[in-house]
Amino acid sequence: MNHSNSDFPMVLLSHRGPVTFQHSESGWTAVRATGGLVNALTAYLAEYLPEAIWVCNAMTDADIAVARMYNGSPLRVALTPTPHLVEFGADATGNERNPRLNLRMVEVGKAEHRDFYSVVANPLLWFIQHGLYEFTLEPEFTEREHNAFERGYVAVNNLFADAVAEQLGAFEGRAFAMLHDYHFYLVGELVRQRYPQIILSHFIHIPWPSPDSWRMLPPSWRDRLITGLLGNDVIAFHTKRFARNFLLCAEEFLDLPTDTDSMTVQFNNRIIKVRHFPISVDIVNLEKVANSPTVAQHVRVLTERFLAQGRQLVLRVDRTDPSKNIVRGFHAFAKLLADHPDLVGRVTFLAILQPSRQDVPEYRDYLAMITATVTEINSKYRLPDYQPIQLYVQNDFALLMAAYQVFDVLIANSLADGMNLVAKEGALLNARNGVLALSETMGVHEELGQFAVSLHPLDVQQQADALHKAITMSPALRRSYSQAAAAAVRRNDIRKWLADQLGDLAALAGQG
Amino acid sequence: MNHSNSDFPMVLLSHRGPVTFQHSESGWTAVRATGGLVNALTAYLAEYLPEAIWVCNAMTDADIAVARMYNGSPLRVALTPTPHLVEFGADATGNERNPRLNLRMVEVGKAEHRDFYSVVANPLLWFIQHGLYEFTLEPEFTEREHNAFERGYVAVNNLFADAVAEQLGAFEGRAFAMLHDYHFYLVGELVRQRYPQIILSHFIHIPWPSPDSWRMLPPSWRDRLITGLLGNDVIAFHTKRFARNFLLCAEEFLDLPTDTDSMTVQFNNRIIKVRHFPISVDIVNLEKVANSPTVAQHVRVLTERFLAQGRQLVLRVDRTDPSKNIVRGFHAFAKLLADHPDLVGRVTFLAILQPSRQDVPEYRDYLAMITATVTEINSKYRLPDYQPIQLYVQNDFALLMAAYQVFDVLIANSLADGMNLVAKEGALLNARNGVLALSETMGVHEELGQFAVSLHPLDVQQQADALHKAITMSPALRRSYSQAAAAAVRRNDIRKWLADQLGDLAALAGQG
Repeated sequence: MNHSNSDFPMVLLSHRGPVTFQHSESGWTAVRATGGLVNALTAYLAEYLPEAIWVCNAMTDADIAVARMYNGSPLRVALTPTPHLVEFGADATGNERNPRLNLRMVEVGKAEHRDFYSVVANPLLWFIQHGLYEFTLEPEFTEREHNAFERGYVAVNNLFADAVAEQLGAFEGRAFAMLHDYHFYLVGELVRQRYPQIILSHFIHIPWPSPDSWRMLPPSWRDRLITGLLGNDVIAFHTKRFARNFLLCAEEFLDLPTDTDSMTVQFNNRIIKVRHFPISVDIVNLEKVANSPTVAQHVRVLTERFLAQGRQLVLRVDRTDPSKNIVRGFHAFAKLLADHPDLVGRVTFLAILQPSRQDVPEYRDYLAMITATVTEINSKYRLPDYQPIQLYVQNDFALLMAAYQVFDVLIANSLADGMNLVAKEGALLNARNGVLALSETMGVHEELGQFAVSLHPLDVQQQADALHKAITMSPALRRSYSQAAAAAVRRNDIRKWLADQLGDLAALAGQG
Repeated sequence: MNHSNSDFPMVLLSHRGPVTFQHSESGWTAVRATGGLVNALTAYLAEYLPEAIWVCNAMTDADIAVARMYNGSPLRVALTPTPHLVEFGADATGNERNPRLNLRMVEVGKAEHRDFYSVVANPLLWFIQHGLYEFTLEPEFTEREHNAFERGYVAVNNLFADAVAEQLGAFEGRAFAMLHDYHFYLVGELVRQRYPQIILSHFIHIPWPSPDSWRMLPPSWRDRLITGLLGNDVIAFHTKRFARNFLLCAEEFLDLPTDTDSMTVQFNNRIIKVRHFPISVDIVNLEKVANSPTVAQHVRVLTERFLAQGRQLVLRVDRTDPSKNIVRGFHAFAKLLADHPDLVGRVTFLAILQPSRQDVPEYRDYLAMITATVTEINSKYRLPDYQPIQLYVQNDFALLMAAYQVFDVLIANSLADGMNLVAKEGALLNARNGVLALSETMGVHEELGQFAVSLHPLDVQQQADALHKAITMSPALRRSYSQAAAAAVRRNDIRKWLADQLGDLAALAGQG
């Protein structure tokens, strides 16, 4: 028996949801969340899975107030003209074509959420999975961290598992559940305990490193996280390498039988599939925004400022996260100018950076190091009418959409990156036959590396040489790289990413 | 056809040799090198393989002068009564039972050696293989590092490959070559080019991490290092985990066919074995030294000072290397005292530390952090007649031999460690049914972990709990653990370690 998607509605879980609420004079205002993943999921669900329930964290005080008002029931949000709450009943008889989403916002106590988010998930799991600890002194697992794990991570996972299970119950258990990311590694097993026959998948959006990195988590955490994930039917990553690393962990830490040909692992008499589905971008929406008048105005300004008289533009777009490797990128650009003085005055590096996690000391230090590095390099290579590096520390979506159109080289040299959607957005929107320069350790390199110049994240000299190669590439080769990269993105947009996964789940349900 | 060892003399290569020379009034004085490996190899070769040639670096100015004097020929050193040069001819007709070694000391230019040793091998390879970089800012591979690799590491490997090949030539190529450690990854392939039929093995004494760690070396280094090792017939490590990681690297970076059942990899129409032989200690010599009057005197002093009135002693013995994780060990001890105030005044932590690589900033900072941590903890828990942590920063072999005999708990909580011979020395010599507390990430944990309390290197609370478990263990269980650990060391002493490898090589030669 094969099930179409509509037979199996979906319960989706992610930490951030598609909208947050704010208090306003007239009551509540809903605001669309930013971020590629959330936007893409929003568009897809509204279009294809209108009955889906999206379980997410109540982020703001207003979210909590709204969540309490609905008292554990889902609420419905219409997305146009601006997001607003609607009644389920009214909607059914009203404008059914108005795109809408069903949300279940979960309230988490402030102390629990701090332990969950600011002690366990974001510093510890994020740093371990991106390889950002040097280990000599940090981290230490003390009573504080162990308590945060139990009272924060485990407790919050239980809370969200309850909410997911409750929503599955509303569908009499005949729904897929799709769980997302490193916040909820324990949810799969907890839901499985309540619904042994449910089809469950978990997508991990950040790198899954090899067992040696996971060995740096206490066994009491590590083995529970992996066991939690094994509650799912499908565990999915962006790349084959991350999927293989997961199998190695299951084998090494839990002594489970794994098969790297079929990419499966056996656990509790179930066969779990370990898959890779490289995520992509929402092409339709990106192109629509990129063609707006606001963006066109930005394009004119950027062109005039950075591309006059045959000048070229190197672009980077990132959060100021140490994993993004921004400082080494500037060092590479400085070495490019040192090795090729003829490029001084002819190539500008525009870095559009968004401050990230400034409550974490390592992140504050990193942003300070970025600005110091830029100042030093600009002092050395500045000319009367030329500043080598332009640092825009701001978050302006229209500016980004414009910058993507006008780069000659887009550099993304992350130390580690689950995918890196900047590279895909840039490849899609660029209009100058711009070349991608991509770190070989990012997920996106598996798909687009063959149409890009490859970077080694630590090798500053190699990065400088690669930038030179990209800047001096023949127009024919540039065009061929640029078009091939854009075509690769078009072949696998976000709708295909989700449809492939749902097809995989439907096939599993059919086997059941 | 099977060959006995005497049919196949051995050419051995390691960076440090068994003796170094010093200028003295009467000419040259030879001094025995310290270090477990070198001592053990020395004893074994002198006893069983008197024709072997040991190729090593001329470390001191006097070494260089002696090397020049011999002009590329091997020299012969008698080991008793004190090490001294002897003539080959004189020896043949003289006291043939006098233990002796044949050395080929290789002179390396100072600049080359600095690039080889202080830019590439010790910071970069050691840090990568022990997981000591946090990567946010360090390391960077700049022109300097790339030059150091070519002019230092590659050049020095060529120089030593020439010397090894020349010595093999003296045996008409009918010898085994055993290469040692991370200084000489390229030598195997270079020797193979000259002697395609030679039996070559390379032993790596430090951890071999998983591909994700090696990906942090530029491909131009990484792939050459791995290819260099694949010139050998056997590549050997201390543990199965390191051996498996090597196979994963060969598969992932060079796309070679590997087999984790037979632990082999195919390269250039040869099948290379990837083995693990856990190294051990020289039992005969250790027990002889441990029973000397000097050591007995140290035992009396330590006993009186730390074990009076039923007090217990926690011991650690280490170089002040960040990989040894000394600071977290002190934090764990402080947590033990905080959690169990009854132990204040009853348990002393004696740390005998040897300063290490004080020319490297990270190592200087680490020693400073160690002393600051000790001061802080002692200030907090000191009593009129009790200092919680005793820090001996010194290098006194007799003191070590004594301390091993009197510990109640020996802690070795390294972040990463190829083997950790301190644990084996302690298990062998202890006379108080002392318990080992061993980090699960050290090679020695594969052999002795089942007779020890296990430590997680980052989990300070778990280490404190494990120390408490060890200190309060019942006498019967203590005795059983202690005896089992000592027995395990006795079953696999250094002679077995070498004999197993030579047997393996002889079997290969027999197949040829």
